[in-house]
Amino acid sequence: MDFAYDAKTEELRDKLLRFMDEFVYPAEPVAERQLADAEDPWARPAVLEELKAEARRQGLWNLFLPDPEHGGGLTNLQYAPLAEITGRSPHLAPEALNCAAPDTGNMEVLAMFGTEQQRKQWLRPLLDGEIRSAFCMTEPDVASSDATNIATSITRDGDEYVINGTKWWSSGAMNPNCAIFIVMGKTDPDADRHRQQAMILVPRDTPGVHVKRGMHVFGYTDASHGGHAEIVFDDVRVPADNLIAGEGEGFAIAQARLGPGRIHHCMRLIGIAERALELMCRRAISRVAFGRPIARQGVVQEWIAESRVRIEQARLLVLKTAWLMDTVGNKGAHTEIQAIKIGTPLMAEWVLDKAIQAHGAGGVSQDFPLAELWAAARTLRLADGPDEVHRMSLAKRELKRYL
Amino acid sequence: MDFAYDAKTEELRDKLLRFMDEFVYPAEPVAERQLADAEDPWARPAVLEELKAEARRQGLWNLFLPDPEHGGGLTNLQYAPLAEITGRSPHLAPEALNCAAPDTGNMEVLAMFGTEQQRKQWLRPLLDGEIRSAFCMTEPDVASSDATNIATSITRDGDEYVINGTKWWSSGAMNPNCAIFIVMGKTDPDADRHRQQAMILVPRDTPGVHVKRGMHVFGYTDASHGGHAEIVFDDVRVPADNLIAGEGEGFAIAQARLGPGRIHHCMRLIGIAERALELMCRRAISRVAFGRPIARQGVVQEWIAESRVRIEQARLLVLKTAWLMDTVGNKGAHTEIQAIKIGTPLMAEWVLDKAIQAHGAGGVSQDFPLAELWAAARTLRLADGPDEVHRMSLAKRELKRYL
Amino acid sequence: MDFAYDAKTEELRDKLLRFMDEFVYPAEPVAERQLADAEDPWARPAVLEELKAEARRQGLWNLFLPDPEHGGGLTNLQYAPLAEITGRSPHLAPEALNCAAPDTGNMEVLAMFGTEQQRKQWLRPLLDGEIRSAFCMTEPDVASSDATNIATSITRDGDEYVINGTKWWSSGAMNPNCAIFIVMGKTDPDADRHRQQAMILVPRDTPGVHVKRGMHVFGYTDASHGGHAEIVFDDVRVPADNLIAGEGEGFAIAQARLGPGRIHHCMRLIGIAERALELMCRRAISRVAFGRPIARQGVVQEWIAESRVRIEQARLLVLKTAWLMDTVGNKGAHTEIQAIKIGTPLMAEWVLDKAIQAHGAGGVSQDFPLAELWAAARTLRLADGPDEVHRMSLAKRELKRYL
Amino acid sequence: MDFAYDAKTEELRDKLLRFMDEFVYPAEPVAERQLADAEDPWARPAVLEELKAEARRQGLWNLFLPDPEHGGGLTNLQYAPLAEITGRSPHLAPEALNCAAPDTGNMEVLAMFGTEQQRKQWLRPLLDGEIRSAFCMTEPDVASSDATNIATSITRDGDEYVINGTKWWSSGAMNPNCAIFIVMGKTDPDADRHRQQAMILVPRDTPGVHVKRGMHVFGYTDASHGGHAEIVFDDVRVPADNLIAGEGEGFAIAQARLGPGRIHHCMRLIGIAERALELMCRRAISRVAFGRPIARQGVVQEWIAESRVRIEQARLLVLKTAWLMDTVGNKGAHTEIQAIKIGTPLMAEWVLDKAIQAHGAGGVSQDFPLAELWAAARTLRLADGPDEVHRMSLAKRELKRYL
Repeated sequence: MDFAYDAKTEELRDKLLRFMDEFVYPAEPVAERQLADAEDPWARPAVLEELKAEARRQGLWNLFLPDPEHGGGLTNLQYAPLAEITGRSPHLAPEALNCAAPDTGNMEVLAMFGTEQQRKQWLRPLLDGEIRSAFCMTEPDVASSDATNIATSITRDGDEYVINGTKWWSSGAMNPNCAIFIVMGKTDPDADRHRQQAMILVPRDTPGVHVKRGMHVFGYTDASHGGHAEIVFDDVRVPADNLIAGEGEGFAIAQARLGPGRIHHCMRLIGIAERALELMCRRAISRVAFGRPIARQGVVQEWIAESRVRIEQARLLVLKTAWLMDTVGNKGAHTEIQAIKIGTPLMAEWVLDKAIQAHGAGGVSQDFPLAELWAAARTLRLADGPDEVHRMSLAKRELKRYL
Repeated sequence: MDFAYDAKTEELRDKLLRFMDEFVYPAEPVAERQLADAEDPWARPAVLEELKAEARRQGLWNLFLPDPEHGGGLTNLQYAPLAEITGRSPHLAPEALNCAAPDTGNMEVLAMFGTEQQRKQWLRPLLDGEIRSAFCMTEPDVASSDATNIATSITRDGDEYVINGTKWWSSGAMNPNCAIFIVMGKTDPDADRHRQQAMILVPRDTPGVHVKRGMHVFGYTDASHGGHAEIVFDDVRVPADNLIAGEGEGFAIAQARLGPGRIHHCMRLIGIAERALELMCRRAISRVAFGRPIARQGVVQEWIAESRVRIEQARLLVLKTAWLMDTVGNKGAHTEIQAIKIGTPLMAEWVLDKAIQAHGAGGVSQDFPLAELWAAARTLRLADGPDEVHRMSLAKRELKRYL
Repeated sequence: MDFAYDAKTEELRDKLLRFMDEFVYPAEPVAERQLADAEDPWARPAVLEELKAEARRQGLWNLFLPDPEHGGGLTNLQYAPLAEITGRSPHLAPEALNCAAPDTGNMEVLAMFGTEQQRKQWLRPLLDGEIRSAFCMTEPDVASSDATNIATSITRDGDEYVINGTKWWSSGAMNPNCAIFIVMGKTDPDADRHRQQAMILVPRDTPGVHVKRGMHVFGYTDASHGGHAEIVFDDVRVPADNLIAGEGEGFAIAQARLGPGRIHHCMRLIGIAERALELMCRRAISRVAFGRPIARQGVVQEWIAESRVRIEQARLLVLKTAWLMDTVGNKGAHTEIQAIKIGTPLMAEWVLDKAIQAHGAGGVSQDFPLAELWAAARTLRLADGPDEVHRMSLAKRELKRYL
Repeated sequence: MDFAYDAKTEELRDKLLRFMDEFVYPAEPVAERQLADAEDPWARPAVLEELKAEARRQGLWNLFLPDPEHGGGLTNLQYAPLAEITGRSPHLAPEALNCAAPDTGNMEVLAMFGTEQQRKQWLRPLLDGEIRSAFCMTEPDVASSDATNIATSITRDGDEYVINGTKWWSSGAMNPNCAIFIVMGKTDPDADRHRQQAMILVPRDTPGVHVKRGMHVFGYTDASHGGHAEIVFDDVRVPADNLIAGEGEGFAIAQARLGPGRIHHCMRLIGIAERALELMCRRAISRVAFGRPIARQGVVQEWIAESRVRIEQARLLVLKTAWLMDTVGNKGAHTEIQAIKIGTPLMAEWVLDKAIQAHGAGGVSQDFPLAELWAAARTLRLADGPDEVHRMSLAKRELKRYL
């Protein structure tokens, strides 16, 4: 259990912290103005491309990818504190470093399971930050935490696969730069429970793909993450070569994709919580009510202290999980991945709620990032399966020790 | 402590429940479509005018106003169960009955404190649902729960008052039909703590009034409540006759206005929570995961049971508060008004959070009303003063019993 | 929904409040000394007999019993505020008024279901406060919230019934004055689920009755309630006439007994919480830390305010439940009885926890009544079935509305 | 941040785990019987001496003491996982290893600050487990979390010091083997805030020492920890050489003593929580209600999962704190020591509460260790200063970063 930041991590942290101070934080108000002026509600701010260029120039690029050829070559434990830092400016920093969901997961899938042709066609431009991608798994009509519920069909027809079904919460798909979807569906509904599914690459402009609308989260479009699209696939035909890994491999790919995806979310949530705590402290110091700064009110002090205690605990569990993934593999870290999936969003939600309260009515508004970040944290109690499913599963494994 | 619904209440409840079933609930999807098609993001749906006409025809109009001449002539206890019912469709029903905030509070102020001229010019069209109004009290730069912080000035200059200052969270002011503002400011900053303030009527189209933007609550514009505007008053001049009640009366008017306003919010929150519980139950019955409806999961059952327990308790305290206001006056009900201001939003927030969780990702989206209602309930922990201020005040009164 | 205290209630409340001030509170330290000096750890303090005599003299006797011939002739709603007051001194006041559990429930059973002979032999001395009784239902080896689990047998053998089995948590049985047990067992394990059980009267001194030990609750023997005994029934023979109501009637009697029993507990818990809040306030005023009374600390004020809000809500739901039991019967009040069984102990536990915290280390000690009262409130989350069983049952009824 | 268990730790863990299995757990029922049969309620069970002998023989002795000459020579990080293990049998294991509070803290004080004579006379027999000791700091009449409140006087009179005052919660002092007290008092009430206090050694049999009674915690005497005595010091005279370190050093010694004391408590609490979770799982598997083991109920699964998440987080923060104390010193670890003081008892209390609930009524009784352990965990929210004081202090330090 060695979570120390090694020399490489420290060096990247220093570089990244400087990058945040010099480029990212100053770009926040710029981005806000650019978005306010944009006509396309899904457009990304122009300043982002500048940040991307700068990050790439500095070697702060694709850090998430363990493969040293294409990415940072970092372990999870090395990447964790960097992802945390990007969480402090979650609408700009992850994308600036080409480390934003869902591209990260999609690039991992292509790097691990893609054919050379698939990697050349889609992984390369993703790695270069030229296009973006979406992941199409959740469906509107069923509880998708149970993978056997998936209703989208992927049917072989000669040299092609035909895709039919409806997805929603396809994150990233509203982004104008989004060019490619990874779609989960069933190639064989009669196979074993976890061999029914497959994943296939569907270019966004394929005939029959109908991007219907973006789903909102607590009133936000989440445009900074490319939104969450509802998409109808209506007799969509793609070459058979677009299948990833093979028929029946979909569940295994999904599992491989989820582990890193979850921990990345949790790492960033630590950074989000840190930023919320900083904002809460600054506000408490500057805001005067009944003759003294609210920082001197006992209740506000309780929020601050309790936030610090919760953040510290959550961060350590995330780091331990990263370390376990590195040392015993994602499967060996299964319990811990679930534990942080359960604990971290709740922690961040709690800290954000108190930070909002300390900001008064401003806290729920667009004048501070807190309300939108709260919505993101709250939504992560549902994304990738509701907490309740994870708790049930974690409990069953705990109980097994005594059976 | 008699909270029984008397004959008049029962009759109105029956009528209102029928009105909800026949007109309001069917109008919900209509309104949604109309809003989606509207060009003005602040427009109200056309169907609302039909609902208003029908409600007025049925005598379900201005029920909130205790004055029998202009309103329902109901006690708080008689009005409470009716307001609760409107809370079940909070974006349509309160306004359909001309019982929506902030007009209700503004009409009360005019009915109680307005001159005949003021009542004729502004109260009459408000009572008729022809115009709407806004209440401008909170300011961006100070903790407004402390009334001495108010910085807007109302300065006598001959036959006029000149108003300078900035307000935000002026609810209702973004509504295109909003014609009149009640503005709180200081006429004498050197007077006693609670004699510095005054309220004045400012038509929305007065030169120098700059409605800058609508504040968001968790991504929502709250357009159904006329939004929450930031307004700059820049040397705004109105006739001296526009002053309500007199210089130095502002704090007293605000206090008189807040009691009923708070209880109306709480009544509607009970209805909101009931609707959330109904949606949670229906969803739990219809949603299947891992082979059985989630209604059979113990955790979901806990949410449902606990919701019922909390709703029942909150409703009774709201009813007791209404009864106290009727029997010993708003001042005598001070503790209870604070108690429901503290307890009811928290209760509704809790129930809504669980209902959202039972809905999966859909719960946070625009496909169900839950997320938006949650945002409203959460915001009420800040509106009219944050919970913490009310708890402090309530505790001090409790402690006084032993001093 | 009329919870007003009528004239009779007000008169009794006045009388009882005076009785508390003049006799009960002054007797508290006396009782404590007498108990400290007593050799028998199960002895009751001598001062209690004086309190009983005085209460009886004043007509504050057997108020719990709705039967006007033997008891107070009060409705549940009339009795509720009186029971609440006795809860403020829970180790003396209920017994002083002959209104202590489990005698109350046992007297109700005998009054409702007993034969004339049974009533003469056991109800009469119970009503006179000459003997005490115990209720033997819970068993150590099974989850007794599921009545079909009960393993004790009651077998007919000629003119006698033979009882075999082990009970625990037989409250009251350690009291030296306890003379009679009501024992639940099975007369026909093959009958329908709710027709297998019967109740039978077993004098404590019957051969084969072995009172093994008193169960502790968090270190307390609960001697003031006669403890909670583990009892072995080893071929215990009693006359067949000792059966109450008939074979197969046990479940129905248990149900009839539980409703009032639960609400009495809840009423007293309100009083307990009120006393805890009073102690918390007094302590907060008198205790100085870091230069000022802790009553001026925001966190302590939050505890006090939140306690008041929770107590008010809980009391109203208890009163509504009492009113419902009076007007639509125990069955009609089933949901509310469960709701207060779930909500009231949790409320009292919360208030007591905060009162303890405000008392520092003294709060957990014998120098204040708070820790022992906390243990009692906590235990009521398990007594008469754990909260979880009640929540499950309440949820199922709520869900039925939509099936 | 390297929390890995090194070779030495692993070796000691193996040895200790075997010792627990072979000696400690089997001794638990033996000790219980011996205590039940003992006449002196403060006696320690005979089996404990056997455990001590065995532990010493195996080199599992005085592990807490960093000084390799007298103790284990372990770092905090090495000792932490061992202390956790002893927490699984908290009434026997810590004392069996001569690692029980308050002796540990007292031995540290003597090792760090004692003169050679003091060490010879008192440290030696403590290290040999021949005598035990108490720490007398808290006073009944004042909030002792504020050290300036201390009222006990230590006055020089020739070659002696005269001690007057009343202490309570002097843990360990009821133990028949307790021979020596370390008493905190004021030598100079007019000195600077933190230079007023001193500590002095007072043999328990010194004339004028009156051990009045043991304080209870939730009904328990806590005899396994030597109880918590109220002690009157009435003109108690000891040689001037008994002063530790010097006049005015009392606060500094107390601070030095508290750091390790707090972390030891927290380490053991992790072990307590682990044992509670194990008991909860075992019970859930074996207990059948409504036709299936309660382990299959969703609510119980939530308790188990949430317990695991909370325990993991708390353990990591304790380990980090230990590591910080080793690397940057107790002062550098101040924030973390406070954080675990706040978070760990709350975590353990939560887990224990759920374990109790899963055990039904048995959970609150003497048949399972849960209720007593709960009382210990709850009390630690007050011991060494209430949570609120620590939160306030931690918040102030957090806020300082932005001032």
